Amino acid sequence: MLVLTILGNNSAIPAFGRNPTAQVLQMDEEHFLIDCGEGTQLQMAKYKIRRSKINHIFISHLHGDHYFGLIGLITSMSLLNRTQDLHLYGPTPLEHIINYQLNVAATTLSYRLYFHGITTEGVIAEDEKFLVKSFAVKHRIECWGFLFAQKKNPRRIDPIRVKSYEVPSSFYEKLQKGEDYITRKGTIIPNEELTIASSPTKSYAYCADTIFDETLAERVKGVDLLYHETTYLKESADKAAARFHCTTEQAGTIAYKAGAQKLLIGHFSSRYETLHEFLSETMEVFENTELAVEGACYRI
Amino acid sequence: MLVLTILGNNSAIPAFGRNPTAQVLQMDEEHFLIDCGEGTQLQMAKYKIRRSKINHIFISHLHGDHYFGLIGLITSMSLLNRTQDLHLYGPTPLEHIINYQLNVAATTLSYRLYFHGITTEGVIAEDEKFLVKSFAVKHRIECWGFLFAQKKNPRRIDPIRVKSYEVPSSFYEKLQKGEDYITRKGTIIPNEELTIASSPTKSYAYCADTIFDETLAERVKGVDLLYHETTYLKESADKAAARFHCTTEQAGTIAYKAGAQKLLIGHFSSRYETLHEFLSETMEVFENTELAVEGACYRI
Repeated sequence: MLVLTILGNNSAIPAFGRNPTAQVLQMDEEHFLIDCGEGTQLQMAKYKIRRSKINHIFISHLHGDHYFGLIGLITSMSLLNRTQDLHLYGPTPLEHIINYQLNVAATTLSYRLYFHGITTEGVIAEDEKFLVKSFAVKHRIECWGFLFAQKKNPRRIDPIRVKSYEVPSSFYEKLQKGEDYITRKGTIIPNEELTIASSPTKSYAYCADTIFDETLAERVKGVDLLYHETTYLKESADKAAARFHCTTEQAGTIAYKAGAQKLLIGHFSSRYETLHEFLSETMEVFENTELAVEGACYRI
Repeated sequence: MLVLTILGNNSAIPAFGRNPTAQVLQMDEEHFLIDCGEGTQLQMAKYKIRRSKINHIFISHLHGDHYFGLIGLITSMSLLNRTQDLHLYGPTPLEHIINYQLNVAATTLSYRLYFHGITTEGVIAEDEKFLVKSFAVKHRIECWGFLFAQKKNPRRIDPIRVKSYEVPSSFYEKLQKGEDYITRKGTIIPNEELTIASSPTKSYAYCADTIFDETLAERVKGVDLLYHETTYLKESADKAAARFHCTTEQAGTIAYKAGAQKLLIGHFSSRYETLHEFLSETMEVFENTELAVEGACYRI
């Protein structure tokens, strides 16, 4: 199961109680922090997300509303005597920004911080259960989107069936790899008879800050949940383009073309006090849309 | 009149709703921001302090709880199309930290930011009405305290007296400089007869983060309001010394030796949920003490 928690949904300047961008994606046991605007550690405290659960942080780009809270979080983790490794992924200059500030403070972190500079599209993090891919998005400066996907689980052994067919436990590994079982009498028991299908894998795509770019739809094709920015309402399409941002209508178009199951919109401009028009305008193009609301959890 | 507003009173990690250090000192028409922990711009919004009023920012040292909110504030000022100059005073590496982050964001500020690196004790900012001096304090890294003082105002002209003695307005400038007036008949009218004494000048000393250092009392001698950190209660004097911080008792001692009118204590450790013991312990040594409370204003 994937659960996405929104910690900030505003663009540029904090306004109307809305904070800059930060999200936490829980994927099975892992908690991924995606972007980290100023005050993210306070938002984490508010919404009961423990700093110690985060082992991977992904920063899309170096506009302040997406990373000014990072140095504070990294420092606090050390002040709280964290010991487990932390993996940080982002544009390459981020490494200097972090290290320089730690150096002038004479700070040696209590844990190992591994910095992974993103330079090309492709897999940037992976283990047995998950995969994270970066994809380039078109913004005013270098900017990366992230695709988070559960890996296809092997079929699980059915404990009742293996017992009834008297399959020796030494054969279990082969069963999980998909082999059929042949009994001592030579009868073939098909793999599907002895194993249970896993639940389908889920995926989440975070498109960060981007100008309207239809090629994006290809890269997030068939995703279960798509996060796409809607900095402006559709009447401000010119302003959006000039600033390398998108409107409601454009986000809906990307979700439709990508065949996403569901669309989540955020990164609202500080000029808007209320958000209901963002939702209604986007739903005209793509019905299964929700507003990214601070503190809310979205199950995927 | 001087008015000090506390925006953050906690040390290191935000805790129990307390924010990292930031203060605003209003001295006549000027608003000085003193330190700028993460979230300061949000605290300013909360306590109705307009970003546009701040023309001078003083950063004591480069531990994150004293400056991680600065880059966000500087950037927001530009996003709001500020045009007036901003003067920033702090340890010299701060200039690189700010400029590097603006560069990677491809940000050109809408206003002029003048950076004044602090390298020695003495006057760092001054105009006709105020004076700001830096003084070195002993902390784990380079750290500066700041003394803010109103300048002695010239005597004000008494409008009723100058009229009754028929002093020509061309002589007003000389009157303000302290000259006596000689009438056409040769009578000497003493300056004190024609002018009114200004209200006494006030001063505020901000001692930042410091180990217990009795020499500090000399440098803040006779100040009207002294801010001194009390990171720990007196039972933790060993811990305080090891971390280059102070206890309640030590802060009270400095205020007493300095002959300060009043003491304000803050920078409380995140280990303490309540603060009343900080007040009672400090008052045992120096009675006219107050706790720095977020959002509270202290008139000097």
